[in-house]
Amino acid sequence: MALGSIFISEVVGTALLLLLGGGVVANVVLAKTKGFNGGWLLINFGWGLAVYVGVVAAAVSGAHLNPAVTLGIVTSGATEFVEGVPVNLGTTFLYFGSEMLGAFIGAVLVFLAYKKHFDESDDPGAKLAVFSTGPEIRSYGWNLITEILGTFVLVFLVIAFGQHGDAAGLAALGALPVALVVLVIGISLGGPTGYAINPARDLAPRIAHALLPIKGKGSSDWSYAWVPVVGPLIGGALGGWAGTAGLLPGLI
Amino acid sequence: MALGSIFISEVVGTALLLLLGGGVVANVVLAKTKGFNGGWLLINFGWGLAVYVGVVAAAVSGAHLNPAVTLGIVTSGATEFVEGVPVNLGTTFLYFGSEMLGAFIGAVLVFLAYKKHFDESDDPGAKLAVFSTGPEIRSYGWNLITEILGTFVLVFLVIAFGQHGDAAGLAALGALPVALVVLVIGISLGGPTGYAINPARDLAPRIAHALLPIKGKGSSDWSYAWVPVVGPLIGGALGGWAGTAGLLPGLI
Amino acid sequence: MALGSIFISEVVGTALLLLLGGGVVANVVLAKTKGFNGGWLLINFGWGLAVYVGVVAAAVSGAHLNPAVTLGIVTSGATEFVEGVPVNLGTTFLYFGSEMLGAFIGAVLVFLAYKKHFDESDDPGAKLAVFSTGPEIRSYGWNLITEILGTFVLVFLVIAFGQHGDAAGLAALGALPVALVVLVIGISLGGPTGYAINPARDLAPRIAHALLPIKGKGSSDWSYAWVPVVGPLIGGALGGWAGTAGLLPGLI
Amino acid sequence: MALGSIFISEVVGTALLLLLGGGVVANVVLAKTKGFNGGWLLINFGWGLAVYVGVVAAAVSGAHLNPAVTLGIVTSGATEFVEGVPVNLGTTFLYFGSEMLGAFIGAVLVFLAYKKHFDESDDPGAKLAVFSTGPEIRSYGWNLITEILGTFVLVFLVIAFGQHGDAAGLAALGALPVALVVLVIGISLGGPTGYAINPARDLAPRIAHALLPIKGKGSSDWSYAWVPVVGPLIGGALGGWAGTAGLLPGLI
Repeated sequence: MALGSIFISEVVGTALLLLLGGGVVANVVLAKTKGFNGGWLLINFGWGLAVYVGVVAAAVSGAHLNPAVTLGIVTSGATEFVEGVPVNLGTTFLYFGSEMLGAFIGAVLVFLAYKKHFDESDDPGAKLAVFSTGPEIRSYGWNLITEILGTFVLVFLVIAFGQHGDAAGLAALGALPVALVVLVIGISLGGPTGYAINPARDLAPRIAHALLPIKGKGSSDWSYAWVPVVGPLIGGALGGWAGTAGLLPGLI
Repeated sequence: MALGSIFISEVVGTALLLLLGGGVVANVVLAKTKGFNGGWLLINFGWGLAVYVGVVAAAVSGAHLNPAVTLGIVTSGATEFVEGVPVNLGTTFLYFGSEMLGAFIGAVLVFLAYKKHFDESDDPGAKLAVFSTGPEIRSYGWNLITEILGTFVLVFLVIAFGQHGDAAGLAALGALPVALVVLVIGISLGGPTGYAINPARDLAPRIAHALLPIKGKGSSDWSYAWVPVVGPLIGGALGGWAGTAGLLPGLI
Repeated sequence: MALGSIFISEVVGTALLLLLGGGVVANVVLAKTKGFNGGWLLINFGWGLAVYVGVVAAAVSGAHLNPAVTLGIVTSGATEFVEGVPVNLGTTFLYFGSEMLGAFIGAVLVFLAYKKHFDESDDPGAKLAVFSTGPEIRSYGWNLITEILGTFVLVFLVIAFGQHGDAAGLAALGALPVALVVLVIGISLGGPTGYAINPARDLAPRIAHALLPIKGKGSSDWSYAWVPVVGPLIGGALGGWAGTAGLLPGLI
Repeated sequence: MALGSIFISEVVGTALLLLLGGGVVANVVLAKTKGFNGGWLLINFGWGLAVYVGVVAAAVSGAHLNPAVTLGIVTSGATEFVEGVPVNLGTTFLYFGSEMLGAFIGAVLVFLAYKKHFDESDDPGAKLAVFSTGPEIRSYGWNLITEILGTFVLVFLVIAFGQHGDAAGLAALGALPVALVVLVIGISLGGPTGYAINPARDLAPRIAHALLPIKGKGSSDWSYAWVPVVGPLIGGALGGWAGTAGLLPGLI
């Protein structure tokens, strides 16, 4: 697989992830939408299935869509991201860059899809929530632990599925397992911080929030921005390493 | 496959799509139903699984059920709709016609299934909503963009699945992927306009609404009717073309 | 397959169907339960997954669990219910009888599981609802049409899946398609009458309601009891016949 | 498979089960979470998908995650838990011990993920509910019957799936069937007692509740603790035995 195709694949997949993931938040929190106040399960299904769609579309690049997944595959000791694409510093940053760019594009598309609802909403906090996560009880240390745990579960399971480098295995229903994992992480571990579990999913849209001409927007909350970057990277690295440490006996 | 079988298959599949899709809206918005006020997720599951049922029933014709999907397959450069059925102007309009007829029949069946609840509802807007979509904030340009984005996602994924011409691939659980895509489009991008993402799904039932003897019905809202036709056709054409343009590296 | 095994299989499968299907209604309508007032989608998931469980458990007999399915297979022109079990009057009534007995047993088990909640509920209508369906707007003719439409969809799809006589095909995830169909029938067509779509599911529990020592129970509503028997039988017969009539081109 | 790997696998799987299962309860009942008051279906999806994740992670040991499942496999007459691991008193207690340890660890992880929300909640009953089940109407006899019925369904279906000793069969989507079964048990039979259906899931977290420094915690309700241990063991033993008793004709 040519590196250009890897790049395009991750951009497209992560853009779809954010378009659909940010979209459900917009639908639930912005004024006058059909899904207004639709509840946590609606949000969880939106993000879970956003992962499903993104993984299908980005199957050829292994569908990381997430720097924490990329890092976890590195720490798992894999030698190739997908067939013919070796794990090294260059390819790792190729993934990071394409994930960030895709997430930025997806966040802009959500803004376009819900433009009139951004205009008619009064709550700056709701507008930021469409782009980035924020904690219900601000406590950087405990918020970090929550994000580490959630991302650990995600990457540990990605390794358990053993499909991350197998494009054919990720097509159609093969993309469902990781979607189910993200669904349950949101349902069960999303309560305190809103489950970023993905640095690109949180940071690139936060940049988009800062740059876009959103009517009546407030702060982009940069003081919290490091938590959903550092937490997922730690959790992802641990999740990838855990298999090699014997916590997944089936891998040995 | 004989063209008559293609026609029947698309009529039956699209009729089931509208019977079950319109049915869930009737259940949620009409008076005195068991699902009254059941929420956006209930509506999303209804439409997503309506697609599932329609696709299974219409597998032999590739289960387009939607002129935007038919158009997207044309713009994707495919040479056959299903084995033995070449892509040309005649077969394209055969699909369009059967989709419109099926959607009309499905809308009539919803009216029969919920006849007494139409009689006992007072809200003409709710009665129209069973048949056709409408925007929460009327703004033709932005509404169009929302419909284009939603339909782009649908058709882009249909192309990614690569099953659209494979009847066996669409049977049983093989029909689930496209249902999951429609489910998440509704959850995430349905907020502003109610996700027509299908000209037949919106226009043919609107005609049915105009013709049927519905007690206390109001306007069929013809001024908006072009948006859920034009938007999905644009989005579908772009979605089909995107694969050939390199956005789906796996296809190259 | 020995006829005794067919009988046991259908009894067990239909008992599980009613235990779990009746169970979700008890959870939603009886006093002081954890799922009290849990909404229509909760009920739909309960019944849909009750079908899933029943089909897995009764795979060896083809998992009809429903006289309307049995009748639809007869009208579809099939010659065997499962391998080695010919379609004839005796085997048809063997299925009918085992389905009725299983549904009766399942209804009794629901009563045991929720005994204290029956004791502490005051509403006789809620107690009946655990056992049998009832219309929101009583109108025998229109209620009948709704039940016919729902059951038609069910049996038409069972025929489309083509797995009804294939025990291996119904194991594990192979049982999911029919569960998804029942899920959407409930979501979309359950609004007026509560979707019996199965004579055994409605009549046998109604008999159980009449016989069981339920504290403070009211009428078993025998005047309505014929609708969820006759409607599903008509819909099932039509659904089975529709494939042979050309509405499922893939079957020809 | 080495016994040490069996032990680690069950510890990890059961820890994930409790982390995600306890997590959803924390999200719904503790103060200031994003999922607060999210409803019974949200809880059911959390536990169902927690089973999914646990089963995938523990596939190599057959993914019991539950002493009632272990016992049911014993009473089913199986000779091996997984290939190379004979059923005997030692291996049975190896499973029991790893399940208890895993559940304890998972409960501690939930406490860490939701630490600040434990601190800010006032209701001792809600805090206990994150760890262990409790009945809505306290009646030891009837509560026991409800737990027996729920666990019977679980183990009966585990036997029906016939995958419990097949690690490859439990990977990816093969873990979905048992998750769907637990989902419907919660939806349909969880109303009276909150569906422990697993002694380790209830007892080990109750011990964790007693030991952990939870701010403002109340009683660990030891008087009820025997019900969700004894009920599931009886139900599991019966569920495993039922197949050999002819209730699953496909097994004969």
